[in-house]
Amino acid sequence: MSHEGHHVVALVGSLRAGSMHRVLFNAAVELAPPGMIITESPAIGDLPHYNADIDLDPYPAPVLALDAALHAADGVLFISPEYNYSVPGVLKNAIDWASRARPKSALRRKPSAVMGGSIGISGSMRMQYHLRQMLVFNDSPAMVQPEVILPKMQDRIVDGRLSDAPTRELVAKHLAAFDQWIARFKTP
Amino acid sequence: MSHEGHHVVALVGSLRAGSMHRVLFNAAVELAPPGMIITESPAIGDLPHYNADIDLDPYPAPVLALDAALHAADGVLFISPEYNYSVPGVLKNAIDWASRARPKSALRRKPSAVMGGSIGISGSMRMQYHLRQMLVFNDSPAMVQPEVILPKMQDRIVDGRLSDAPTRELVAKHLAAFDQWIARFKTP
Amino acid sequence: MSHEGHHVVALVGSLRAGSMHRVLFNAAVELAPPGMIITESPAIGDLPHYNADIDLDPYPAPVLALDAALHAADGVLFISPEYNYSVPGVLKNAIDWASRARPKSALRRKPSAVMGGSIGISGSMRMQYHLRQMLVFNDSPAMVQPEVILPKMQDRIVDGRLSDAPTRELVAKHLAAFDQWIARFKTP
Amino acid sequence: MSHEGHHVVALVGSLRAGSMHRVLFNAAVELAPPGMIITESPAIGDLPHYNADIDLDPYPAPVLALDAALHAADGVLFISPEYNYSVPGVLKNAIDWASRARPKSALRRKPSAVMGGSIGISGSMRMQYHLRQMLVFNDSPAMVQPEVILPKMQDRIVDGRLSDAPTRELVAKHLAAFDQWIARFKTP
Repeated sequence: MSHEGHHVVALVGSLRAGSMHRVLFNAAVELAPPGMIITESPAIGDLPHYNADIDLDPYPAPVLALDAALHAADGVLFISPEYNYSVPGVLKNAIDWASRARPKSALRRKPSAVMGGSIGISGSMRMQYHLRQMLVFNDSPAMVQPEVILPKMQDRIVDGRLSDAPTRELVAKHLAAFDQWIARFKTP
Repeated sequence: MSHEGHHVVALVGSLRAGSMHRVLFNAAVELAPPGMIITESPAIGDLPHYNADIDLDPYPAPVLALDAALHAADGVLFISPEYNYSVPGVLKNAIDWASRARPKSALRRKPSAVMGGSIGISGSMRMQYHLRQMLVFNDSPAMVQPEVILPKMQDRIVDGRLSDAPTRELVAKHLAAFDQWIARFKTP
Repeated sequence: MSHEGHHVVALVGSLRAGSMHRVLFNAAVELAPPGMIITESPAIGDLPHYNADIDLDPYPAPVLALDAALHAADGVLFISPEYNYSVPGVLKNAIDWASRARPKSALRRKPSAVMGGSIGISGSMRMQYHLRQMLVFNDSPAMVQPEVILPKMQDRIVDGRLSDAPTRELVAKHLAAFDQWIARFKTP
Repeated sequence: MSHEGHHVVALVGSLRAGSMHRVLFNAAVELAPPGMIITESPAIGDLPHYNADIDLDPYPAPVLALDAALHAADGVLFISPEYNYSVPGVLKNAIDWASRARPKSALRRKPSAVMGGSIGISGSMRMQYHLRQMLVFNDSPAMVQPEVILPKMQDRIVDGRLSDAPTRELVAKHLAAFDQWIARFKTP
């Protein structure tokens, strides 16, 4: 399956500077297959809390930036921890804005994939199935397998780098599959 | 079951001034059983996006206010719309803060109940099951039945007041059951 | 997108002879786009309860029949009511068998779609999101939108026929989209 | 909180003779707090697939047996593996019967708790949240924390016995909390 390259926007669900999910994002950038470029979305921490009373003429600047980035992307990659057995509020808020930025969501028909991990045993899986349900609303086809669910993520990181070889292999496999997944949805 | 009265804090998931869920909150205040006082939480729209890097010594003022209100309450009532088939980001963010405000969550062992509606057919049910899963993490016993799931909520409201009689009856029944539910968890 | 026609196997989640979901199945057969043939799966009510101790050499006949039908199909259509806020046990049991019939599931890489309704207000939506999660395990790409969620299904049926025009239109649109969805996954 | 002892019926979600969940059931029987008696439900593998056409006058014998056992119990303990990221079909089928055995479910107002594990990383958690949603329908208050979620369950079992000390402690703690949970719902 040849193509001219896919541009993927990543939404990172943690705002912490030293977040393990930022480490995972960095690994994803490195491990993307040839032709796939992954860049981070405009800062989701700058978005106001979604409120339908907010004047959208013009859009608040961070909403406009998020919408433009999503609109230009070939696919969207969610890289997120699990908070309270679900999606972090700040990431959910970004999805709330994305879904209203255009008449039928900036995520519409935009292929998506999900990665995440945890310090404990869940590996973020409870977050991932909630996120998948949100993507159904947005008509965003979310890639199925292979899932990237990483329990005890801290044991996979050394000196701020995703160092565990099987984890790196899984991330690479996930991104190669995502590249193919995006291609499937590019045909008319 | 006699008691000295229960104080319930309501978290309203919509920030809109004219939100139908504010109308539902107002109805809940009116329809609470004798002895139950329902007040709204400090403004969740004032909370920063949750970020573990934020200095908690001292807590940001809106976090402190939310924690104090939850800690003092006998029960917590969630009144929320459904956004993107789940909990609004702004409400999820409040839960993210509540869960970290104390060593084991300000919601811990705090009886809870959930109400919501929608313009469309879901009646907020997709939001409600996601919220229930979040409450498991927080060790907050969420009341089971009767559920308040209100499709086509706009047809139940006239002139900014919840006017539909069967809906008012359901809300009253829900709150009477919640009063009993809270009492069950007050015994040591 | 031209193709030689897609063969879709439907799994119907209710065993009742006069089930409204059988009526919906009949409507789907009629409303399928040109080239799409929908047939019902071998009887899922004949399957034993899944038990890993059951000797699979040879497979029990109903398991073999289900596996063969799924394996030969271009896509799988789930048409089901909601029982206990989830997938009917009998349909879940069929999925349990399908997932073990081959090393990596008879549903693997098999495009799927979901339809359902209810007498009450849920329209089967609580069933549908549980089913979607099961399909993630099976690596079956489940079509996203348009969803067919039918509250008060009994009002859409007259004399054993799905008669409501907007519902018929939605079913036709869903199947036309499913036809395209299947085609996306046929390319290598 | 003194009481005359609680009788708990356990529903085991796996039919395999050598199931790890049978080992977990045996451990639960041993580790129950003083006064709590745990017995297994009548065989759920004997239930027919739920079908509303089945004549309920009289009930099929296995349905009657299940209903009688649940009705007599003070609480219900679910001990189950995860199949296809959800509740095993055979267990879901038992719930489908239980929910129809009485006008408002044999599980109604029946306190419940959930335990499970897996060979892989999920520890059955995806099963548990689906099961909790089913219990909302049935108006069965499901205990919140502590959860018993056991990844790599095979490493906790030696010679057909749950041997891992921290796991045994968690199971004992769960059952002691369940004893209190049941007591809360016994008061009128």
